[in-house]
Amino acid sequence: MLSKTPPKGMRDILPADLELRQQILNTVRGVYTSYGFTEIETPCVEDIKTLTSKQGGDNEKLIFKILKRGEKLENASQDQLCDLGLRYDLTVPLSRYYANNNGNLPNVFKAIQIGNVWRAERPQKGRFRQFVQCDIDIIGEESCMAEMELISATTTALAKLGLNGFTVKINDRKILKGLAQKAGFAEENFDNVFIALDKLDKIGSEGVVNELVAEGMDSTNAQTLISLANDISQQGLQKAKELLDGVVDAKVFDDLATIIGVNQNDNFKIKFDCTLVRGMNYYTGPIFEIAVDGFGVSVAGGGRYDNMLGRFLNRNVPACGFSIGFERIFTILAEQGKKADQTRKKVAYVVDGRCNAQIIADVFAKAKQVREQGDICLVAKRIKNFGYLLEQLRTQGYTQIWQVNERGEVRITD
Amino acid sequence: MLSKTPPKGMRDILPADLELRQQILNTVRGVYTSYGFTEIETPCVEDIKTLTSKQGGDNEKLIFKILKRGEKLENASQDQLCDLGLRYDLTVPLSRYYANNNGNLPNVFKAIQIGNVWRAERPQKGRFRQFVQCDIDIIGEESCMAEMELISATTTALAKLGLNGFTVKINDRKILKGLAQKAGFAEENFDNVFIALDKLDKIGSEGVVNELVAEGMDSTNAQTLISLANDISQQGLQKAKELLDGVVDAKVFDDLATIIGVNQNDNFKIKFDCTLVRGMNYYTGPIFEIAVDGFGVSVAGGGRYDNMLGRFLNRNVPACGFSIGFERIFTILAEQGKKADQTRKKVAYVVDGRCNAQIIADVFAKAKQVREQGDICLVAKRIKNFGYLLEQLRTQGYTQIWQVNERGEVRITD
Repeated sequence: MLSKTPPKGMRDILPADLELRQQILNTVRGVYTSYGFTEIETPCVEDIKTLTSKQGGDNEKLIFKILKRGEKLENASQDQLCDLGLRYDLTVPLSRYYANNNGNLPNVFKAIQIGNVWRAERPQKGRFRQFVQCDIDIIGEESCMAEMELISATTTALAKLGLNGFTVKINDRKILKGLAQKAGFAEENFDNVFIALDKLDKIGSEGVVNELVAEGMDSTNAQTLISLANDISQQGLQKAKELLDGVVDAKVFDDLATIIGVNQNDNFKIKFDCTLVRGMNYYTGPIFEIAVDGFGVSVAGGGRYDNMLGRFLNRNVPACGFSIGFERIFTILAEQGKKADQTRKKVAYVVDGRCNAQIIADVFAKAKQVREQGDICLVAKRIKNFGYLLEQLRTQGYTQIWQVNERGEVRITD
Repeated sequence: MLSKTPPKGMRDILPADLELRQQILNTVRGVYTSYGFTEIETPCVEDIKTLTSKQGGDNEKLIFKILKRGEKLENASQDQLCDLGLRYDLTVPLSRYYANNNGNLPNVFKAIQIGNVWRAERPQKGRFRQFVQCDIDIIGEESCMAEMELISATTTALAKLGLNGFTVKINDRKILKGLAQKAGFAEENFDNVFIALDKLDKIGSEGVVNELVAEGMDSTNAQTLISLANDISQQGLQKAKELLDGVVDAKVFDDLATIIGVNQNDNFKIKFDCTLVRGMNYYTGPIFEIAVDGFGVSVAGGGRYDNMLGRFLNRNVPACGFSIGFERIFTILAEQGKKADQTRKKVAYVVDGRCNAQIIADVFAKAKQVREQGDICLVAKRIKNFGYLLEQLRTQGYTQIWQVNERGEVRITD
């Protein structure tokens, strides 16, 4: 017998869950399109060279690789078995897409992408090997108007979903670099410095210093870094600007202030956080993340990646994106008891199994009328355990249930 | 530089095309849900054993196989490199899904599935290696009420899409088998007999006889088969019932008559065709197909597959499905000039690049109001070639375009 379970870390989605998932995505789509974003689609599969071009950080270790086919496979050496892979995010494919299609796209292109991505992570609660991402990106806008809009659109979408009590954190890769430089670290150590700094709120000042020293870095530098970070955390953006004067361009801070200013809102908090890092290698400017109060993990993240397009085109094009972690949003809303709204009436005809073809044709005609009115109409066959059938129908939301007996007589069920 | 084209046989989808694709799918969804079908989703990836279990006919030769990962790969022999594959259809995954989840599904389960499938076919016009299928299936209904409903729902959906002039052909695998048996063929040759018979309308009686003889089959049997098929084609279902009396159960013909009767309609033709074969090995009863007049290829196909569930469960469960070839439908509608309906007004604010943060914040506030009214509002930055920008905006459907100058003055563009 064949196995009936889906592959490890992947899921079958039941009707009620899928209905809620689709409603959530349609709400998000509705908000994003209201900002003038338009939706695109790329294949789930990309060239393995694109996927392993050192843009995806650790995700490149988690790629599902696809075996070559036919003759190509016969002639392949062990390390050249694969020519394709499943995408691990939607940003790398978007960049390839823009390079391929920019002649048919507006000069500033505002893209929505909703689709599955795959990562061969060790399965654990709330982590899946196939999961949906929901991204918006603005390509071709060099000013911080892009960040202003991405944050506005994403927070509006989350609010429209009924999520409240969330915090947008924002930082800039240039500020991170400035901090590391000011503290005295060499550039080749910056990535390790950021990885440690990212943990400040979890492991505290001493923890970060210890980690950096354990990595073989200078303890004075580590102390300076933490002291800078703590001062900035307490005193904010203006303090950062002063402390990093001469190291980081003033415009970086002014842009962050503008982005924060336009998105000030009563429904959520937005704040500068100089310890926000974001994992991906490709970020070059502002980076941002949204956490829902009471849930440790972030539900959305993004930033500017001005150098990625240059990997596919013979010129760089500014680009910036914000990605919603759809599975987390779905989990939070489902845990809050949210169900898909039912907008259509549900009517059922339960026909006796002995009904002849003519009676069934008559029921089909009745059902057609109900459907043409915009309602849902199910035709079901009566089973021995009618009580069980009724229970099933009511669970599915059928509120008007007609019974048709073998003589074609129709009566409503109380 | 990285390649900017998608993998061979796969496509990037532009915004206008995706919008039309989504509208088509939502129309189909709307019709299917009105019949009480509910949508499900399975992973795009399935166990390679499931995909190569001899249920998919030639499609099993076209599977994109996924390499094992980590230790599993290190210990794998050359012919055991893969543990997973991309699904080549939605029917095999649905059967696995039903086996896995039937405890949480109604006793008669009416499923919608809309999703990508992958086949490594030689690329050619109109054939893709990743393409969307749109299926409905009824699991647990042994009577021909299933076929009646599947055909009713599918034809209603096609009509709602504005497709007119199509023909539903219907046959039964039992009739095909009866024909082959009555003509004197041995059961091990039935599949080859069907493959030849399928071509009757293309290569004619003589062509089919020649092909069968070339395959080493008896010429008298071949002549008998063609003569039976031609008699039935001319005289219809009742004649088939008479000719195959004692070979095929009368109920088979009566059921087809019922299915055809309830779906008689002024908007399309539905007819019995004893030469309709359908490729998949798994069909066990009625089979059907829809062709749009003027397009050679079929746009939808399906049938009953009562033995597939037994591969995943320790019992058989009756099942029947109808699949729309979405890419063909899309191509036909796009060639007819169909565009996505625009239901929301599109407003744009074009701001001068010299505007300060306060002016931009004011424009953002205005844009927010437009969006909250349910319209689309784009904020764009003015570029040197304003005429080009205007043209782009109008092409995208923006009918109300406001210009904001560096002093924050707003005026409408004629």
